[in-house]
Amino acid sequence: MSTSGWVRGRLRKAPENFLSADDARQPEQMRRKFMLASAAGVAAGLASLAPQRSAAEPQGDPNILQLPEHSTNLGAPVAANPYGMPSQHEKNLQRRESPGLTRVSAASVAFTPLQGTFGIITPSGLHFERHHQGWWDIDPSRHRLMINGLVKRPKVYTMDDLMRLPSVSRIHFIECGANTAMEWGNVAVPTVQYTHGMVSCSEFTGVPLSVLLDDCGVDRQQGRYVLGEGADGSGMTRTIPMERALDDVIVAYGMNGEMLRPENGYPLRLVVPGIQGVSWVKWLRRIEVGDKPWATKDEAIHYMDLMPDGTHRQYSGIQEAKSVITSPSGGQVLLDRGFHNITGLAWSGRGKIRRVDVSTDGGRHWRTARLETPILTKAFTRFNIDWVWSGEPCILQSRCIDDTGYVQPTIRQLREVRGTRSIYHNNMIQSWKVAESGEVSNVQVG
Amino acid sequence: MSTSGWVRGRLRKAPENFLSADDARQPEQMRRKFMLASAAGVAAGLASLAPQRSAAEPQGDPNILQLPEHSTNLGAPVAANPYGMPSQHEKNLQRRESPGLTRVSAASVAFTPLQGTFGIITPSGLHFERHHQGWWDIDPSRHRLMINGLVKRPKVYTMDDLMRLPSVSRIHFIECGANTAMEWGNVAVPTVQYTHGMVSCSEFTGVPLSVLLDDCGVDRQQGRYVLGEGADGSGMTRTIPMERALDDVIVAYGMNGEMLRPENGYPLRLVVPGIQGVSWVKWLRRIEVGDKPWATKDEAIHYMDLMPDGTHRQYSGIQEAKSVITSPSGGQVLLDRGFHNITGLAWSGRGKIRRVDVSTDGGRHWRTARLETPILTKAFTRFNIDWVWSGEPCILQSRCIDDTGYVQPTIRQLREVRGTRSIYHNNMIQSWKVAESGEVSNVQVG
Repeated sequence: MSTSGWVRGRLRKAPENFLSADDARQPEQMRRKFMLASAAGVAAGLASLAPQRSAAEPQGDPNILQLPEHSTNLGAPVAANPYGMPSQHEKNLQRRESPGLTRVSAASVAFTPLQGTFGIITPSGLHFERHHQGWWDIDPSRHRLMINGLVKRPKVYTMDDLMRLPSVSRIHFIECGANTAMEWGNVAVPTVQYTHGMVSCSEFTGVPLSVLLDDCGVDRQQGRYVLGEGADGSGMTRTIPMERALDDVIVAYGMNGEMLRPENGYPLRLVVPGIQGVSWVKWLRRIEVGDKPWATKDEAIHYMDLMPDGTHRQYSGIQEAKSVITSPSGGQVLLDRGFHNITGLAWSGRGKIRRVDVSTDGGRHWRTARLETPILTKAFTRFNIDWVWSGEPCILQSRCIDDTGYVQPTIRQLREVRGTRSIYHNNMIQSWKVAESGEVSNVQVG
Repeated sequence: MSTSGWVRGRLRKAPENFLSADDARQPEQMRRKFMLASAAGVAAGLASLAPQRSAAEPQGDPNILQLPEHSTNLGAPVAANPYGMPSQHEKNLQRRESPGLTRVSAASVAFTPLQGTFGIITPSGLHFERHHQGWWDIDPSRHRLMINGLVKRPKVYTMDDLMRLPSVSRIHFIECGANTAMEWGNVAVPTVQYTHGMVSCSEFTGVPLSVLLDDCGVDRQQGRYVLGEGADGSGMTRTIPMERALDDVIVAYGMNGEMLRPENGYPLRLVVPGIQGVSWVKWLRRIEVGDKPWATKDEAIHYMDLMPDGTHRQYSGIQEAKSVITSPSGGQVLLDRGFHNITGLAWSGRGKIRRVDVSTDGGRHWRTARLETPILTKAFTRFNIDWVWSGEPCILQSRCIDDTGYVQPTIRQLREVRGTRSIYHNNMIQSWKVAESGEVSNVQVG
């Protein structure tokens, strides 16, 4: 990882930018001041062992910064927040609804701010939301899961019943089938939060659905599908083929080490790895085993794509391989040429990410990015690549390949197959244009 | 994963228990009611498409539960919480200070509630805290990192400088050297939160320290150690050998997908994988390169162990392989015999966990547990194993082996080497006694 060519001094401005306007104007003066203050701080450190709150701060030479309060005084106690929160300086990093996207905010989307997240774990507080009739904080002592239909022993489980059973923990992405939908229409919404923010990745914990189906004596001859049903008012029901249900589906109560968040289905949801989010039924209250697909309203009216030949694609669940550069991305500004780390995410509903290539010239040349480990099946993979910006306008793109050999398509390749009237399953290569001013914006090329 | 022998009906009671006392008394009646209500719910679901808030709830037959409000009404909108929080029903799961542990809560510990966490990612809101002079929410626009000493080009970095540089993301545990210290004294504190809760595991993101040292032109001949210095008032400084500094140490700004939490060093901390937490200097403001260890106050007065021969172990950083059963664990109660999932955590400062064995008879017989994937170096590994409790008193233990072949010791084996006057680095096999009443408590055996 060479940093040659990294020009210091002026910095990337973004909603998440840390440098004050004053500092940006006078970087060298700021640094000199700090060096002097730090030298003073080393000496002062020895005197700071006594926990006095009234420590006199050094005065005098204006070239010496005063030691900050946090280096001289007693700070806050432990467990001041029994459940901790982000810094007050991070309030700008939040999930957001796209204004006017739906008529009712209880049946809408809040997007994850991918431009400001790191690694592969999405903070639960920033997990995207998609509700069909709003969210609830359900009392787990009253919540039940029923399993019925083509089973020998229909059962009703309490939460405590479920938490005694064999448990698995796995890291998976969840993506709404409508993620990146606006790009079908070439709308070019401004930021990666709105183009790609209906995807998150968490560690989920729960009981394999196969364990529960076996516990109820599933009929493996006739039972060819299961239906998941949520407890909210939307009547959300989704069909899952039995083969998949017995594979890696989890009846999950845990997310990122703690119980699910209310907005994400607390106390129980389905985890259907690789499949669009609508099938990950939240507030899960019932699993029915049947012999054919149910064609429920969310399988027959919504979540279908109109194809060029006039037919509808139905039950199109798998989220194909997809990647996006999260930084630099739309809405950010490069304040200077020189070295920048390009970072982004890749994922595939069919398995692991094998490779991510990055182009900084609109797709003419590609370089292979570094993939952070672990590389997991049906999970985010974080990529990073060095880049030295010359200061000329350019177009940044990422393209991933999964372990089936599938290559993420351009929007042109997608349209050749899917036409122009799809809403769902847009996994096109995303392009970010860097202007000479350093401003980054969403463009469609190719 | 067989569930044979799993007796349903009565359930594990714990601080995290979900079942109400009424339900626990009448499980069969409760289930019958739910079955009827669910059948009614399927019919009612079709009528719930209209988003009326004033839906009349079904009345009449007391054997039919009323449909809950959340199944008939419109819920809360998206982004109601721009930064989400756990359910109101989870308030009991919090980090806690051990009363009277230290004289000042700003120089104390808040423990992670391991008994109620899942998987390998510790929720950032529950990450343990250990401060030496309290915590601060430092303004990142004013924070700087200086690198000086035996380098050709001493530099001062802003946060924006650092975030332009090559970035890595890695999942690692962090454990305080004093974790499980009370067990040296056979104090048998009651819960796993207090015996083992000074350990957490997160995905960290930042710049490899090697990149920064190279950027400053580190003197690789004379520079044999680095010193990390924090910006808080405790004058926290720790020595790290150069070989380790150039290996896997990260200057981290990210934790679990977002910026570090203030209590964990926002905006910058050292990540020193496998090494005790005190070396992961928080609020990192300076790295100095030198030619010998500094023997700072936290290396010469604290964080040392008095050995049987009267000498002190100093610079004893590595956290050796360790495991603990997190559920069932002290303070929990098994309300019934029958099937229970035993779950816990294992970790090693030297590499990966190779195997975890579990005994339910105080160490006479051992069975090998299932390890959840991914199994990562210097990170938590989650284990699970089936168990059918006969109702007799018994003792639960876990014992891990890392990929160096090191086997987690008993307390007796530890004392043979370390004597009785150690404070730090207690990685003994933990024993939980299950009484005939189902009550679980902390005991020392072996």
